[in-house]
Amino acid sequence: MSKRKAVVSLGHEALGYTTTEQWDAVKVTAKALADLVEADYQLTITHSNGPQVSMIHKAMTELRRVYIDYTPAPMCICSAMSQGYVGYDIQNALRSELLGRGISKAVSTILTQVTVDPYDEAFYEPNKVIGRYMSREDAEIEIKKGNYVQEDPGKGFRRVVAAPKPIDIVEIDAIRALADADQIVIACGGGGIPVIEQQHVLKGASAVIEKDAIAGKLASDLKTDELIILTGVEGVYKNFGKENATPISSMTTTEAKAYMEAGEFEKGTMLPKIEAALTYLENVPNGKVLITSMDHIKDALKGKAGTVITA
Amino acid sequence: MSKRKAVVSLGHEALGYTTTEQWDAVKVTAKALADLVEADYQLTITHSNGPQVSMIHKAMTELRRVYIDYTPAPMCICSAMSQGYVGYDIQNALRSELLGRGISKAVSTILTQVTVDPYDEAFYEPNKVIGRYMSREDAEIEIKKGNYVQEDPGKGFRRVVAAPKPIDIVEIDAIRALADADQIVIACGGGGIPVIEQQHVLKGASAVIEKDAIAGKLASDLKTDELIILTGVEGVYKNFGKENATPISSMTTTEAKAYMEAGEFEKGTMLPKIEAALTYLENVPNGKVLITSMDHIKDALKGKAGTVITA
Repeated sequence: MSKRKAVVSLGHEALGYTTTEQWDAVKVTAKALADLVEADYQLTITHSNGPQVSMIHKAMTELRRVYIDYTPAPMCICSAMSQGYVGYDIQNALRSELLGRGISKAVSTILTQVTVDPYDEAFYEPNKVIGRYMSREDAEIEIKKGNYVQEDPGKGFRRVVAAPKPIDIVEIDAIRALADADQIVIACGGGGIPVIEQQHVLKGASAVIEKDAIAGKLASDLKTDELIILTGVEGVYKNFGKENATPISSMTTTEAKAYMEAGEFEKGTMLPKIEAALTYLENVPNGKVLITSMDHIKDALKGKAGTVITA
Repeated sequence: MSKRKAVVSLGHEALGYTTTEQWDAVKVTAKALADLVEADYQLTITHSNGPQVSMIHKAMTELRRVYIDYTPAPMCICSAMSQGYVGYDIQNALRSELLGRGISKAVSTILTQVTVDPYDEAFYEPNKVIGRYMSREDAEIEIKKGNYVQEDPGKGFRRVVAAPKPIDIVEIDAIRALADADQIVIACGGGGIPVIEQQHVLKGASAVIEKDAIAGKLASDLKTDELIILTGVEGVYKNFGKENATPISSMTTTEAKAYMEAGEFEKGTMLPKIEAALTYLENVPNGKVLITSMDHIKDALKGKAGTVITA
């Protein structure tokens, strides 16, 4: 079988919340990724970074409380730091897992920015929930800073930010050069650092790009053979969460659109994945999308699990 | 003139201490780097990260004091974060400066690890000063944590860590692929994240790799035409700091070694630069080393400033 290029999108299950949780989680994640490498895929990997960027942002805030001569670290800097932090853990875990299987392969992380439109309607209605639950007092502090929060009754408050559509991946040439050289690349971590182009300057935007949206964009730009979305469930379901839930083993884009219109896919979880799949298949009509969980990847490669979407 | 490949090493002058200082400093740095790009160089850029990694390490420590469920961030993670943070600022400033000059060129940052020998004698005698001055009380806290500190009489205390020699640049294949594609690459930030190879695992080491040492190693590995070390002084001097100080406009490796033996080059500042130059010229005998400051780079390219070392 000739080598197939794929973009793999990793959800928050792949990483965990704290530094030690992440270190344990990436070892499991690396096994699923190594299964794909063994199945002769060239991988470009994207991942979420919500808890990580939130941890770093809190740390930088605490720093300034204690050492007053430090200046603030805006979200874009925290996001850049989180790409370094998560990339470091994923690339090491994957490198170790591959070496353990007798495979020596270059794995690296490219710091990535993604331009967004300052007039994207998402900026007028922030709806992407980020970070951990916080108390009412902490929520009020966030509101005073000009940030948006959302109450989850009985659980607490969480910050919400705008999730604009990705326009251009600034470092796409670097990512493509590495993918073309058959290396494993980690890129667009956390959806990429969202930036707004102002003349020759890229200004960090107070936003988050959906990891699934950027995965669809990345696979479109690289024209990969596949887009593999690893998530918490084995595949896509009809009537998800209900008694008559039925797994969908395969569907066409037309079927996917019909399900979408019927409200089958949950907002914020499955819907963005299907939207990413549709974007990619519009750009790469002979491409293939696979949605499954990390522990079902081996079965999914044999066609025994997961959901496949084609045009 | 055909394109010349060069590794450029940036000192702490290129970055500043806080987030805002760094943002101002990289704009100036970008001008010097853009001068090199305009002079038709392909650049692979390394930089120091002492103050940055120290800032992040402090932030992660404060985070744990407030939010006790977070687990510690060892130095290697802080170092990975700092590569993301500094790379982000340098690549953006350089991209803007180049676009302002009508040059559109891919600039990206590769997260980089560098293996060190656990038996390197540096581990027995830590001597690399990092971070800002601290009080006696803070110094005592560091000592209790098992860290080393050094007193600078009248000024305070600073942490010292081991500075082992770089052995292998783990992500060299990715760096080479980008340099070969004539892209601008930022790599080995802060000397690279020092790691010790234990079977298939790379373990973060409590150490710092000299930025000059890694620049010499990187230029050797990439076999670049030049190694350009940008620092705080216009060039190398004989009798530096004395009344009869004389600039050295050029020297051979034999002359450099003779000066070194005569104790001409200050430990911790000029000496590691000369050592890096010698390492590189041993591996690339037809190479050229240029040592100068950012504001003398244009003159240095015309042979009117700086110090050139050849074999």
